[in-house]
Order: sequence, then C-alpha cells, then structure tokens
Amino acid sequence: MTAITEKKQFVRDLTPGTRVDDLFVLAERVLSHKKDGNPYLNVVLSDRSGQLKGVAWDHVEQMAAAATGGDIVRVSGNVSEYRGAPQLVVRTMVAVDPDQVDTADFIPATDLDIDKLFERLRSLTRSIQTPWIKALFEDFWGDPVFVTRFKRAPAAKMMHHAYIGGLLVHCLSMAVLADKLAGHYSGVDRDLLIAGAILHDVGKVREFDFTTAIDYSDEGRLLSHIVIGLEMVEKRLQTLADVPRDQANLLKHLIVSHHGAPEFGAIEPPKTIEAVLLHYIDEIDSKINAIREFMAKDATAETWTAYHRVLGRHFYRGRSTAVPDNANTADPETGRTD
Amino acid sequence: MTAITEKKQFVRDLTPGTRVDDLFVLAERVLSHKKDGNPYLNVVLSDRSGQLKGVAWDHVEQMAAAATGGDIVRVSGNVSEYRGAPQLVVRTMVAVDPDQVDTADFIPATDLDIDKLFERLRSLTRSIQTPWIKALFEDFWGDPVFVTRFKRAPAAKMMHHAYIGGLLVHCLSMAVLADKLAGHYSGVDRDLLIAGAILHDVGKVREFDFTTAIDYSDEGRLLSHIVIGLEMVEKRLQTLADVPRDQANLLKHLIVSHHGAPEFGAIEPPKTIEAVLLHYIDEIDSKINAIREFMAKDATAETWTAYHRVLGRHFYRGRSTAVPDNANTADPETGRTD
Amino acid sequence: MTAITEKKQFVRDLTPGTRVDDLFVLAERVLSHKKDGNPYLNVVLSDRSGQLKGVAWDHVEQMAAAATGGDIVRVSGNVSEYRGAPQLVVRTMVAVDPDQVDTADFIPATDLDIDKLFERLRSLTRSIQTPWIKALFEDFWGDPVFVTRFKRAPAAKMMHHAYIGGLLVHCLSMAVLADKLAGHYSGVDRDLLIAGAILHDVGKVREFDFTTAIDYSDEGRLLSHIVIGLEMVEKRLQTLADVPRDQANLLKHLIVSHHGAPEFGAIEPPKTIEAVLLHYIDEIDSKINAIREFMAKDATAETWTAYHRVLGRHFYRGRSTAVPDNANTADPETGRTD
Amino acid sequence: MTAITEKKQFVRDLTPGTRVDDLFVLAERVLSHKKDGNPYLNVVLSDRSGQLKGVAWDHVEQMAAAATGGDIVRVSGNVSEYRGAPQLVVRTMVAVDPDQVDTADFIPATDLDIDKLFERLRSLTRSIQTPWIKALFEDFWGDPVFVTRFKRAPAAKMMHHAYIGGLLVHCLSMAVLADKLAGHYSGVDRDLLIAGAILHDVGKVREFDFTTAIDYSDEGRLLSHIVIGLEMVEKRLQTLADVPRDQANLLKHLIVSHHGAPEFGAIEPPKTIEAVLLHYIDEIDSKINAIREFMAKDATAETWTAYHRVLGRHFYRGRSTAVPDNANTADPETGRTD
Amino acid sequence: MTAITEKKQFVRDLTPGTRVDDLFVLAERVLSHKKDGNPYLNVVLSDRSGQLKGVAWDHVEQMAAAATGGDIVRVSGNVSEYRGAPQLVVRTMVAVDPDQVDTADFIPATDLDIDKLFERLRSLTRSIQTPWIKALFEDFWGDPVFVTRFKRAPAAKMMHHAYIGGLLVHCLSMAVLADKLAGHYSGVDRDLLIAGAILHDVGKVREFDFTTAIDYSDEGRLLSHIVIGLEMVEKRLQTLADVPRDQANLLKHLIVSHHGAPEFGAIEPPKTIEAVLLHYIDEIDSKINAIREFMAKDATAETWTAYHRVLGRHFYRGRSTAVPDNANTADPETGRTD
Amino acid sequence: MTAITEKKQFVRDLTPGTRVDDLFVLAERVLSHKKDGNPYLNVVLSDRSGQLKGVAWDHVEQMAAAATGGDIVRVSGNVSEYRGAPQLVVRTMVAVDPDQVDTADFIPATDLDIDKLFERLRSLTRSIQTPWIKALFEDFWGDPVFVTRFKRAPAAKMMHHAYIGGLLVHCLSMAVLADKLAGHYSGVDRDLLIAGAILHDVGKVREFDFTTAIDYSDEGRLLSHIVIGLEMVEKRLQTLADVPRDQANLLKHLIVSHHGAPEFGAIEPPKTIEAVLLHYIDEIDSKINAIREFMAKDATAETWTAYHRVLGRHFYRGRSTAVPDNANTADPETGRTD
Repeated sequence: MTAITEKKQFVRDLTPGTRVDDLFVLAERVLSHKKDGNPYLNVVLSDRSGQLKGVAWDHVEQMAAAATGGDIVRVSGNVSEYRGAPQLVVRTMVAVDPDQVDTADFIPATDLDIDKLFERLRSLTRSIQTPWIKALFEDFWGDPVFVTRFKRAPAAKMMHHAYIGGLLVHCLSMAVLADKLAGHYSGVDRDLLIAGAILHDVGKVREFDFTTAIDYSDEGRLLSHIVIGLEMVEKRLQTLADVPRDQANLLKHLIVSHHGAPEFGAIEPPKTIEAVLLHYIDEIDSKINAIREFMAKDATAETWTAYHRVLGRHFYRGRSTAVPDNANTADPETGRTD
Repeated sequence: MTAITEKKQFVRDLTPGTRVDDLFVLAERVLSHKKDGNPYLNVVLSDRSGQLKGVAWDHVEQMAAAATGGDIVRVSGNVSEYRGAPQLVVRTMVAVDPDQVDTADFIPATDLDIDKLFERLRSLTRSIQTPWIKALFEDFWGDPVFVTRFKRAPAAKMMHHAYIGGLLVHCLSMAVLADKLAGHYSGVDRDLLIAGAILHDVGKVREFDFTTAIDYSDEGRLLSHIVIGLEMVEKRLQTLADVPRDQANLLKHLIVSHHGAPEFGAIEPPKTIEAVLLHYIDEIDSKINAIREFMAKDATAETWTAYHRVLGRHFYRGRSTAVPDNANTADPETGRTD
Repeated sequence: MTAITEKKQFVRDLTPGTRVDDLFVLAERVLSHKKDGNPYLNVVLSDRSGQLKGVAWDHVEQMAAAATGGDIVRVSGNVSEYRGAPQLVVRTMVAVDPDQVDTADFIPATDLDIDKLFERLRSLTRSIQTPWIKALFEDFWGDPVFVTRFKRAPAAKMMHHAYIGGLLVHCLSMAVLADKLAGHYSGVDRDLLIAGAILHDVGKVREFDFTTAIDYSDEGRLLSHIVIGLEMVEKRLQTLADVPRDQANLLKHLIVSHHGAPEFGAIEPPKTIEAVLLHYIDEIDSKINAIREFMAKDATAETWTAYHRVLGRHFYRGRSTAVPDNANTADPETGRTD
Repeated sequence: MTAITEKKQFVRDLTPGTRVDDLFVLAERVLSHKKDGNPYLNVVLSDRSGQLKGVAWDHVEQMAAAATGGDIVRVSGNVSEYRGAPQLVVRTMVAVDPDQVDTADFIPATDLDIDKLFERLRSLTRSIQTPWIKALFEDFWGDPVFVTRFKRAPAAKMMHHAYIGGLLVHCLSMAVLADKLAGHYSGVDRDLLIAGAILHDVGKVREFDFTTAIDYSDEGRLLSHIVIGLEMVEKRLQTLADVPRDQANLLKHLIVSHHGAPEFGAIEPPKTIEAVLLHYIDEIDSKINAIREFMAKDATAETWTAYHRVLGRHFYRGRSTAVPDNANTADPETGRTD
Repeated sequence: MTAITEKKQFVRDLTPGTRVDDLFVLAERVLSHKKDGNPYLNVVLSDRSGQLKGVAWDHVEQMAAAATGGDIVRVSGNVSEYRGAPQLVVRTMVAVDPDQVDTADFIPATDLDIDKLFERLRSLTRSIQTPWIKALFEDFWGDPVFVTRFKRAPAAKMMHHAYIGGLLVHCLSMAVLADKLAGHYSGVDRDLLIAGAILHDVGKVREFDFTTAIDYSDEGRLLSHIVIGLEMVEKRLQTLADVPRDQANLLKHLIVSHHGAPEFGAIEPPKTIEAVLLHYIDEIDSKINAIREFMAKDATAETWTAYHRVLGRHFYRGRSTAVPDNANTADPETGRTD
Repeated sequence: MTAITEKKQFVRDLTPGTRVDDLFVLAERVLSHKKDGNPYLNVVLSDRSGQLKGVAWDHVEQMAAAATGGDIVRVSGNVSEYRGAPQLVVRTMVAVDPDQVDTADFIPATDLDIDKLFERLRSLTRSIQTPWIKALFEDFWGDPVFVTRFKRAPAAKMMHHAYIGGLLVHCLSMAVLADKLAGHYSGVDRDLLIAGAILHDVGKVREFDFTTAIDYSDEGRLLSHIVIGLEMVEKRLQTLADVPRDQANLLKHLIVSHHGAPEFGAIEPPKTIEAVLLHYIDEIDSKINAIREFMAKDATAETWTAYHRVLGRHFYRGRSTAVPDNANTADPETGRTD
C-alpha cells in the first residue's frame, strides 16, 4: 500500500515547543463549554508510537464537525505542557481519506511477510485427512473477505501479538507446535488438534477493530472471541455436507475450553486429550511471546527486565545476552529469528 | 400419560430380603469375567427415589444383550447385602417399551400444571412491544418440537429445579420478577430483561438428557447450556427479518453473562444494567429454591437443617414453622404455595 | 439553610494563575520547619468538587492556630503549579462559623426532597403488623436526634450513594424492593424483611462523619457499621416490652449477614430465607446505583464507560442513549427518574 | 458432682451383639410411619466417646413422649448391625434427672482443676492498672451466673479446646502469653492486651449449648460469638462510670478483629498493635492445641500422624517421641504438662 | 529378579470366606489391649492391587515381634467381614527375606524395558555440548548407587507415573519434548532445557521410599523433592571444576521454579524462557499421563470417565474409542503405544 | 568508618534551581542517541533519602566510561524540571573510591550498636545444649567473612527491617521471643526453635546486595533466601562430625516452612510444633515492625496512618500517642525503645 502522505512526526518524539503538522488517529473527541459559554474541544491523538492529549480553543465547532472518533486526521498546532505532560494546542484538524495513508504508521504491524506466513498455514491445512475438517478449511480459505481480515487481525490488544498480523503469527506457531505434540503421545487426533490451533482464536477477527487502532469492538466486549468464533465455525459447518455432529462438537469444545479454566474464561475445562494439549500450546505460545516482547520493549541493557505487572515478576535476560531488536520477526514455522 | 404397568417398588424402600419384580431405569451396565472365564454383569438401577446396585450371575450375556444404558427394564431378583449396602441379585431383566410406562416414576416432576404455567409464560411474552423480540418468541413458541422439550426440561441435575418442568417453573418465576424489577429502576429495557429471563437457560433443553433420568448430554458436557443456548437463539434470529444486530448482541450478552463472573461460568461479566439485574434475578430464584427444596427434603423437624455442603451452612427453619410438604408446588407467578 | 456567604470558586475550576478568595474545608494541616528553622504549613483544601493542595510561607503559626482539620475556612491566595499539579499559595486563612455556610457546597447531596423521602419510608413502616417491630420503628422515629442524622447520612464514602441523604435513598429503595419480593415467594416474613431493609445499614449514621466532608469516624473504622448498627438496635430493643428474643435475633441476623459472605464482611452467611433475600436486594440496589452513578459521572459521550477499577469492566451505555444528567435524582419509590 | 448412677457402657465400645442398659444423651429423635401405618422411632444417642444410631419398633409413641432432644435417657436394648454399622434396637427409653448424673460422662472435660485455673486468671486481672478495665473485670467476676458458665464453656465444638473448661484453659494460656509479649515491644498497652486475651471469645458462653453435649445455640449460629461477646461487654460497660469511650472502642476492636481477616470472620482487620498481637496469640494457642490434641488422639505410634483434613498435612511426631497421654492436662500458666 | 515364592492371592480379589496364605507388605501394625488385659494386633496389609485390614487375636506378641512396618510377610488366615468391609483374621504372620520375592507383586511397575529407556536418556545427554552440564551428567551416570535408585523411583505416590520406573518414563518423555520445543523458539538454551527436564524431579529418588510400597520418606515430607534435588545437584557441582556459578544458578532455578507458581510449590516463579518452557513441559506430561492413566483404570466402557476429583471434571473417551489396555506402556521417546 | 568526603546534599531536598555537587549512588545508566546521532546519557542517582533522575548532554561518552551501575559517584550539575518532576542536568560525574565514603549516607542503617546486638545473639547461642547445634553456631560465628556480612545484611528491601543491620535486629528479636514461647508449651525443643529463629533467614546475606543500595542479587532472584539459606546450613553441617541426619532435617524444615503456606513461599507447610511456632514468631516480628515503621514514616500527626497498600488498611495511632522518632531504635532484646 503506497501512502500519499508520508508521516514523519510520531507521538513519542513530541516535546514541549515542537511545531506539529502531520497525520494522527483521532482516538477521542469531547466538546465542552467554558463558563462564558464558549466551546472548546479536548482530543486524544494516537499513532503507533503512543497517545497525546490535545485541546482546541478556536474554530472548535467546525473541527468537531469535520472528524469523528477513529478518523485519520491531519493536525497542525504547537506542543505545550499541561499538568506536567505535553499537550498539543490544536490549530487545524481535518479528516483525510484513510485509503491514502499507510495504516502501519498508526498501528504496529509484524515485519514478517504476511502472505508467506499465510501460505505456510494453508499448506499445513492441506495435510489434513479428515474430510469434514478439510472441507471446513477450504470454506474458510475460499472466502476472500474472511481471509483478508484474518491476515490482518491482531491476537490481543496489549499482552502479546498485539499488532497487525499477530493472530496469523500466533496461529501458525501454534499449528506447528500442535503438529509436533500430536506425534509425541499416541491416540491424539492430529487433524482435530491442528484445526483447534488455527481456529481457537478465530473470533478475534471480529472481537477487535483494527482499522486505525487496535481496540475491542462492541460485539467483542459483549460476546467475547470465544462466542464469536463458535458462531463463525458453526455457521460454516451448517453449509457443509456430511459433518459428523459429535466430531464437530469436539472441535467446538476446543474453542470453548482453550483458556483452561473458568476463572480464565474457559466456559468448560478441557475434557479431551486434544483440548488439554491445545490449552498448553496456547499458554506456551502466548507466554513466551509476551515475555520476549516485554524483554525487547524494555530499553535498558540490564540483566533483569523491569517488573512485569501482569505476570508478577522481573525476567532474567542474562549478563551477556544481546537484546533482540524486534521480537516480532521470529520465523513462526521454525521458531528462529536468525 | 397412562402407564400400562404401574410401578410399586421404589429403590428407597428396598431392604435386604425383599423380593423384587418391577420397572427401573438401567442406569449403568458393565459386563466382566471371573478368573474361571465365566461372565457376570454389574448394573445400576434407578428410579425417582434413588439408585441401587445389582449383579447377575446367570444368563448374563442374554441380559446384557437385551437392554442398554438408559432403557426402562423390568427386573426380578432378591435384595441381599454386599459391603454394608443393599444389592440386588438380578434373576431376569428385559427392556420394556418406554411409551408404556409413566416416566414420572423414574424422574421427579413438578406437581404443578405444566400447560397452565406455559400459558402464563406465553401470555407474558405477548406483552412484549419490541418487534424483533416479539417475533423471536413467536418463532420459538411456534415450533412444537421445541415447546414439548422446553416444557419438560429440568433446570439442573441436582441443586434446584432438578425435576421435569423445572426449567419452565424457573423461567416463569424469573420473568415475573424481571417484570417487577424493570419498573423499579428508570431506563431499564423491560422487553429485553423479560426475554433474557426466559431465554438465559434455554440451552438446557439440549444440555440435559431427561428421557428416563436427568443427566448431562455429550453436547451439554462439551459445550455447556450457554453456548448451546446462544446457538439456538442465533439460528432463529437469522431466519427473522429486521433484527437490529446491536440489539441482538445485547440479548446474547444476557445469555453470555448471566452467571455473573467468569469463575462461575460467565464468559463475560454483566456489562449492561439489564445483564446485572438478570444475574441477580437468577441468583435469587436459584438460591431461594435450592434452600426451600433442601428444607423440604430434610425430614427431621429440627430448628436447623442439616449442613448444606455446597452453600456451606445450616439453614434456620424456625422453632415453630411447619415444613412445607412439597417445595415444588409454589405458584411461580404469585410466588405463593397457599 | 441560607448561607451568609455564597461560595463561587470550586476546586475543580482552579488553574494556575487564578486568584482565590473563598470558603473551603480544611481537610488536612501539617506544620513543618525548613532547615533554617522557619515554619511552613502544608494544607489540603476540599469542597464538593474535589481536593487541592496548598502551602503557606508567612504568618504560618497564626494560621495554624486559627483553624483545625475539618473546619470550614475562608482562604485567600494564588494558584501556582508544583510538580505538575496546581498548588494554592495561601496568604490568609481563617475559620468561619459552619452554621453560616451551606454545607451542600462542601459535600455532595441528593437533589431529592429528603423530607418527602423520609415521609414515604415512615409510611411504609406504618404498614408493619408485628407489634415489636412496629414499636421499634416508633422508638427510632420518635428520637429527633437520630432522625436528623439518619436523614443526612451517606451510604458510602465512594462507591454508591456517597452523598448527603444517600443512606435514606438507599434504604427507601430497598424497602420498596423488599415489599415486592416478600410477596413473590410464600412463607416470607414481610415485616422482618422490610425492617431489615431499613435497618441493615443503620450503623452508618455513626460509621461516617459527614459534617464538612464524608469520612470514616474512629468508631466506624474500629467497629464497622455492622457492629454499631447491632448495638443501636439492641439498645432500643432492651427498652421495649414484650420483644420475643428469638424473633429479635432474626432481625439482628439480617444485619449480621447482609454482606452475604465472610470475605465481604458478613459475620455469618445468610441462614434464613429473609436474610438471603435481603442480601440480594442490597446487592441489586448498591450495584445498580454504583453503575448508574459511574455512567453519569464519566463525561464522554462514548458507547462504553471508562474502565471501572472495582467492578473490573467497562459498562455499555449504548450507541444512542443519552446520559442522565444526575443519577441521584431517581424517585426511589417508583425507581423512575422521569 | 456425685452421680447417682454410674455410667459403664460407652458408645465407642458397643459392638453388634452387646446388650445395653445405660445412660446416654438423646441427641436426635425422629418419629416416622411405616406404609402399614405403624410408627417407629429413629434416635441418635451420644456420650463423651461418640454417637450411635438406634431404632425402636414397639411402644414407640410412649417413648417419643417420654424424652426430647438433649435429655439424658436411660436406654435398654441390643446392638445389631445395619448397613455395615452398629445400630441399637431400643427396647426402653426414659428421661432421667440430669442433676443425678455426672455430665462428664457425656461431654469431655478438662482434667485440670477448673477452680485453680480460674483463680490464676482472676489474680492476673488483679494486676491490671487501668481503672475502667479493672472495674469491668470486677463486674464480670462478681456475677456468679456468668462465672459458673464461663468456667464450664468449651472454646470450640471440634477443632481445639472442645471440652468443658476449654474456654478457660484457652483464655488463661493466652493471657499469660499476652503478658509476655506486651513486655517485648515498647508502647504496647498491657492492660488492654490482657483484657482482649480474656474477653475475645467471651461470647462463646452463649454461642454454645453445653449442658449434655457441645453444640451451637440458635443465637450462636445466627449472631456468632463475636457479636454476642460485644453485646456482653457493652452491656456491662454501660453500667460502669467513667469509661472513656475511645478506649472502650479499642477493647471492642480486639473482639471485632481477633480472627485476623474478613475471610476468617474478622469484621475489621486488626488496626492497632494490640489487635495484631492478640490475633497472633490466638492463632498460636489455637493451632498448637489443635495439633497437640490431634497428635494425642491419633492412636498409632507412627512417626507421622494421619492426614489432618482442615490443616491439610500430616504432622511429625518424631521417631522416638512418646505421645502425651492427654493433651488437655497442660498447665496453662507454665505451659508444661510435666 | 526371580522370586522364590510366587504370589497368587491379591488384595483386590479377597472376599469374605476366602482362606489366605500368601505374601503381603505389612503396611501398618498397632498393638492394643482389650479391657480384660489381653493384647490384640491390628494390621494393614498391602500389595500392588490394594490394601486390606486385618486383626490377630492369638499369639499376638510373637507376631508383633516377628515383623515390623514395611516388611514383606507371609500371612495365613481367613477373610471375614467387619463394619461392611472385608477383614482378614490373621492366624500366622512371619517376615520373609525381601530379596526372595518379586517386589513387582507389591508395587506397580512399568511394563517397559527400564534399561532401554535409561539408555535412550543417557544417549540424549551425550548430545549435550555445554561442558559443565555434560560433566554433571557423567558424574550422575557414573554413580551406580544413584543410577539404580533413579531407574526404579516413581514420579508420584498417586496422581501420575506412580509406579516403579515412573520417574524415568516421565523424565525421558519430558527430555524428548524439551528437545522439540528448544528448536521451536530462537534463543533457547537447549542443553540447559534438557538438563532441567531430566533433573527437575531428581529429588524424588529420596522423597519417596519405594522398597515395598510407594510412600513419602521423612526427608521427603520435611524438605520436598525440590530441596532434596537442589542439594543433590549442588553437591555434585561442587566436585566439578570450571562450573560457571551464574550458569549453575540458572539450572538450579529450573528446579526451584518448575511448579510454576508459589501456590503450587514453586519457590520462585519461572524467570527465564527456559524455566517457563520447562514448567509447561512438566504440566503437559503430568496432566496427559494423569488423564490417560485415569481413563485406563476406570473399567466401564462408557463415553465419559467417572468424575476426577483432583482435576474436577469427567473426561471424554469418545463413543467408539477403545480404552488402551495399559497406559504405562507408551514408548516415551516416540510417544506412541502402538 | 570515617568518610573522607562528607555528604551534605540529599535527594529528598533537591528542588528545581538547586546547584548540586555531591556524592550519590549511580543506580542506573543508559546511553542513547538522538536522531542527529549525538549521544546522551540518562542516569538514576540515589542516596538513603530517595532517587533522582538525571540527564547529561555533554562529554557523555567519557562519563559513561568513568562509572558503572552501583558505583559511588561525585556529580555536579543543576536541578531543572522535566514532565513535572525534578531532573538533574549532569555536568560532571566521576566514580570515587567506595572505601572513602560513609555508606550510611547511601543506605539507611539501624541506629543501634550492631556489635552489642551481635554479642547478645552470640551469648544466647552459648546457652544451647544440643551438641551439633552448638557446633553449628560455633562454625558460623567462627567465620569472620560470614559474620561481617551477617551483621550488615538487611532483612528486606522494603516492607520491614529494610536497613543495614535489619537482619540481625530481626533475628535477635525473634530468638528472644522463641526463648519465651519455648517455655510456654511443654515438649518444645528450645534449642531447635532458637536455631530456627536465628537461621531461618540466613540466606538473606546472599539474597541481597547491600554495598551501595539494597537490591536483590541475581542469585537471590533466581533461588530465594530459603534455598540459599538451606545450602549455607547444609554445607557447614557436612563439615561437622556427629550430626544426626533426622535432627538436621528438622532444622532444615524450619527454614523450608517458615513462610507458613505455599502461597506465601513455604515449600512445605510447618509440620512440627517448632515449625508452627517459628512461623508465628516470624509473622509477629515482621508485621509489628512493618506497622511501627509505617507509623513512624508517615509524617502527619493524624489519629490514623495513611492507607497501607500491602496490608490493606489504615492503622490507628490513637488520639494522643506521640509518634516515635525512629522505629529502628527499639532494643530488640527487651523490645523497648525507652
């Protein structure tokens, strides 16, 4: 995608005194009134590097009318300081055509070749023998609207794989792991396990909005990716012939149970060997990536990372280990970044 | 339903020495072999009063072939004692036509008039103004297969409303409560709340098998009534015209969240006023009925009930309160048993 | 109450550069000394809109002597900025007669007519048939010191009904709900349930100080409103004739158990039907009000509220729902704000 | 106390075939009817060694009328076996005058000299300097009805000190510990801490019924010993002159908080140094006694005790340590059994 | 090992009336006295199929002297019934030389070839490149006393791999998994991860006694296999030259943290990528084996297993899946049983 | 220790505009580059009063080379303000010889006489009778490297005794308490309990680095003081003759279990009377000191402290109690500060 306007100023670099004239996402917009009755506009602007608050005192109503939350806007103004943080005093703000910009400036994206990753995933599904599972993937892959969205979706808002393409990177890595583990224990249904690895999070293509920023959709917040994913799979299954219902329930059970325990969002705990395995494969790939991304983000070259609030500990980088430059570039099939 | 054969012997009354010749559910059946190679058959027999173990030493393979788990069987034999508990030594066992028996002998059922309860519920749904919700109930009520099953389904296997008709009794009581509470706070969508009260547990018509005994179905154990219920509602919504998707998501959110918190099985916590209210209405009706049924079951005329293991306490009956004879007979619309 | 001096400047509106001369609560006051031995005074000033830090460098000891924590003070000075936040440099500060001010400027209060609400509650207690409960309320309502305090008490410091009159609004709403639910299930002692609805939080009249700001009293922090409320009820019961002790214990049990479970502060879990119902009525009224107040406070006109830290989620306002202007104005008897 | 009839047969020793004619507590009594309309009586009999079920087939109604739950009864009959456990077939049962029996046959009691223990506790309270605390104990000790009950009360139904005199043994041991710890840290109010040690569980004199068996009273189950104890202390404080209310609240806070955390029944967590210390003193004395009593009860001479279900572990007795014969005989002042 | 006496009678098959004359483990032995002063002996006898209580009335003191807990004894007597369970009335009991018996009769053991499994593990450690890790394994494998014990140790008392050889089976399977996962993510120290897989549970060789039955040793109960394992590794490391201490700490951290979280026994949570991976590899291999062993043990040919108390659910076997005959026979390197 | 250069400027007193020229700990140091390629240096400086961020724009690489994290550095520059907080613009920075400075300026230390405290502890260990325990302490006290470190070690980074000498103060106080409690209950092994009191936290001498600031060592974070302490004790035990292994395991069990429960870091829960007592002694001394230090730190002379986030409550100081000036000065043997 070629952007007409190239973005040069990023939120992270803006300090008091900077003169701004560039593109941002209008993340939030609130119109208020001063006691003298004059209106003013509070905004939050964002790009892939962070968020910045702003305020406009003049031409407020025109600006408010010219752009709405989620738009890409061209903004001019000056950075001042308010309550100890930089604040942009907005002079002009107009919405621009989102097709004219490079959305990668606004949402982080994987550096890997998405088409190549997808092709690997697709080729893995070609090795599936079970007819109805094979047919289900053909149905998914044959729907270009779905495929486009699936290739761009993030796997999370914050913790891990929180970037364009993240869902694909996560699913491919899990499918490769599933293939390895299916062979380690006898009696494991490999086709089912691989299908679960690829589809367990498929509802995330609708759980998230990721046009100009990654955030939950209304549907995502009300129903969760588990329920949405079940609906997506069930809908396609109903159009296929000869789907054995008890087998289909085993696939749906993988989606239902992949969080492992109710307190972590599993509607039912894993009740089949494949469901137990899938849960751990998901845990491994999420946690390892969350930790590696955290190690990479944290700029100091210290032996230990900062304290990870969610995981509740510092992580050890080692005395001599060089910090990887970009944790998103690992080859998900081989698992190697080099 | 008129049963051809009237059942007279109930499990609870069988003591060592009793000669048995009556109908039971064949709840379990395991064929084993002694060291000398001869087969024997272990069975579990049940009826509405409880369960009894049994063993057959003769004609074992014929018997094993003649009936399978879940069948209604006519059994003859003698009650002996094994390891301190009564055990039936089975002499003959044959499956009988389930249509010839009164299933009420095998599964407990409400004493209330199910058709009358259903008519009340139906009339409540006629008061709904929102067109798509009205249409959804017309679709449900117009499906005789669904209605037959909905009128018989239990609301649980053990804790509360664990009897034929229990789901209907529970939903009607909740719908009446929903109607009362919707008027207490401004801004509550009454139609949505009543729809949630009736449909939040609708998946239980498939979560449970309740032909000859109440137990979980495979689908129930793998997917839960929440997922099944969402699927049932979504399937009908797709056949209706003019369903506003964001409104439909609010109804589905009521099903998703009615258990209140993830650790109790809610996929998402309640995020709308209606979802918060529905959760409490469900809590009230389940807990009050669980306690009342426990008070009624517990035969001693003591001030305090026995210890309730799940709820973790004794309940106070009061020094002079007569124990109600049957906790299932309350009028669910008025809430009064007298 | 007519205030002699009308307050015009509120903490929320004070920005660096503003010249201040108005009334505030002196919430905190600490006298320290610089290395050169000169004293300075750190203060925290508050009103119904928030809190502001201040510092005084001159005439410090006179000021410190002239007012103490909790006083209403007239303060003059200028707002500057310190460590990124506004700070008032205090020039003069004197205590004023609290009877001369409108305390509503300093603590938020309900907009509803407190006397009317109280009259409704009182009329509800007139419908009670049980003699000793009737007598207990006559004793409470006949004590003007208690009634004055009961009508002003808040129901909480922060979460819900955290305003003058909040306890009354909460109790009246609960009593009306109790009346509705008592009729829904047979065998419920309506008089006991209504008494519990009104008295379960009565200890809050002493748990909180609410003269110039809402905060916990020493007694409140050491003993809790549950223990204080039990003491208040027991003390009056001892002056009444013919109180059946076992019945009185059931009323006291409602106070003891209304938080539902020990981890939420219930000394015993609810062990009677009435106690179980009262717990849920309290839950419903607290949670619904906490959410509605949170929805109202949160100024953006977004579909979703900000993240509610205690309840652990965003709440859905809906795409088109206008935010109510004041969540405290609901008619607690009918539950409607319109 | 000299018992007219000496009890010789204890529940623990009764095996099938034994002929019984002795005194027991009638712990439970349920009158039922057979299908033929004839009544029968199920009973539970107890003494200090355990419980035994029984059944009567003849003269049932006379027997049922002749004794009620909690009575001491003289029972004759034969022990048979039912469902793998001994069962007494009761021939005759009559209530006897409880003053004629030695209740020590029916409830376990300390072997220590209760009067001597009480005298030690009383002498400890004589060392208290704070006038109002001194006066409070004079008031308690001057009430013979209270003292009689206090000297007999158990400290628990099962876990520790579950015998006549247990509360006194526990309080004396804690008071001695409190005295030691008060001197270890500066700034601790010794009088307050000792008062807390003696009075923190004082509500147990009413929380338990312990005439013929140790069980919870209605009041105990509905209100808990914490609430009852607060009421007992407050009532006496109101009759005393010159009680500083803020000091009294600190004593009441010791009762309120002694369980340490809400999930263990503390209404408020300990908020003073004395409350924190008292909580740990209580923990130490309860746990050490629970473990020692468990070690003593468990008859095998193994290195490890059986698994303690509540504490969740086996305890180590040591390879050579002789098991103490009676864990209740420790001298609570010196803490030594030898 | 060739046993001189072949055991034919197993506890599981003993029913009332059987005449017994065979070898058992004397698991427990308690000498008591009847009121008339005569001694009697209570015993617990065990073999690989279960446990049986027994009692001896004659020649009691000789028998008590002739054998002690843990001995293999030859016992003769008759099975009767006591309180609803079989009980052996012991006539004679003498200890036999444990070297003369096949311990496999008394403790369950893997059917796999232990020497072959060990050889595979050893060859895996030959592929390690890091000198000090290589040296550490040479030191372990060069110690015949250790190797003998390591090859026999169980991995648990009950949940999974609770049989002779279980630790080896578990470690080999984990080492193979570690090898696979080490290649999936870049930057993982394969040698360290494999060393952790083999040594994380090494303390179990002393945590358990497994001569005649699997039970915890004193040291095991007091210190846990984690502490014992750390001590074993540290002791050997101190005898090796050129061990980099920071690297050694990373290996010890794998032992310290492999339970994942403090509440599951991890002293520290996993703080390196290798520690996170090792924890999940352990989880997978333990859980999958626990479930497979549970599926195999549970004799009914039902779709669902019985309820697994620790894991809190029924597991799905599938409608047509044949139950594997022996869950212990999986080839741990390939993971396949066929 | 006499410092050549006396430190006069402390972080807590530095405000924008101050000219700085003094010694600090270089806690952190990160070299970055601006877009124009020029380097700049971010530093964090600390002393016993707190931490300050700083930045250097000139001579950056020389400075970066001249000092590394943990060094004591002489810094000159000016305090400005950045994002609402003071920031030092560093002009010069050089490392100084740590032996030339008084480390007490950089880490808080007890005001008590460390040598005197240690002498008391040593004399307590002389009263020990058990030969091997006596020998163990002689071994510890005879090692001057250990003793020097033991006398300086802190007991924590933040919560309590977080100062030089804190471990000694804590252990002495606990040993005195252990002596008192050992006499209160019969059958307690006094020597073992005192040994546990002194050695339970001995691993903290390696868990923390405390040369120029208190922080966790790599070994501390990877292994915890429990594992390190066990290793330290075991290593010395192996050099002693005639150590009874089962007794040694009981001492090691005290270290293993002193945190009380796995979720608080105990590898095994306390399984001996001594272990249970030691856990409570540790709880008492840690909590009482944490609260007293918190009460002392909190500068306002209010009745209640600020909210203690970890302990989850406000603490009551009392209306008239003077705040102790220094909570670290209590005499740990008598427990009195006066």
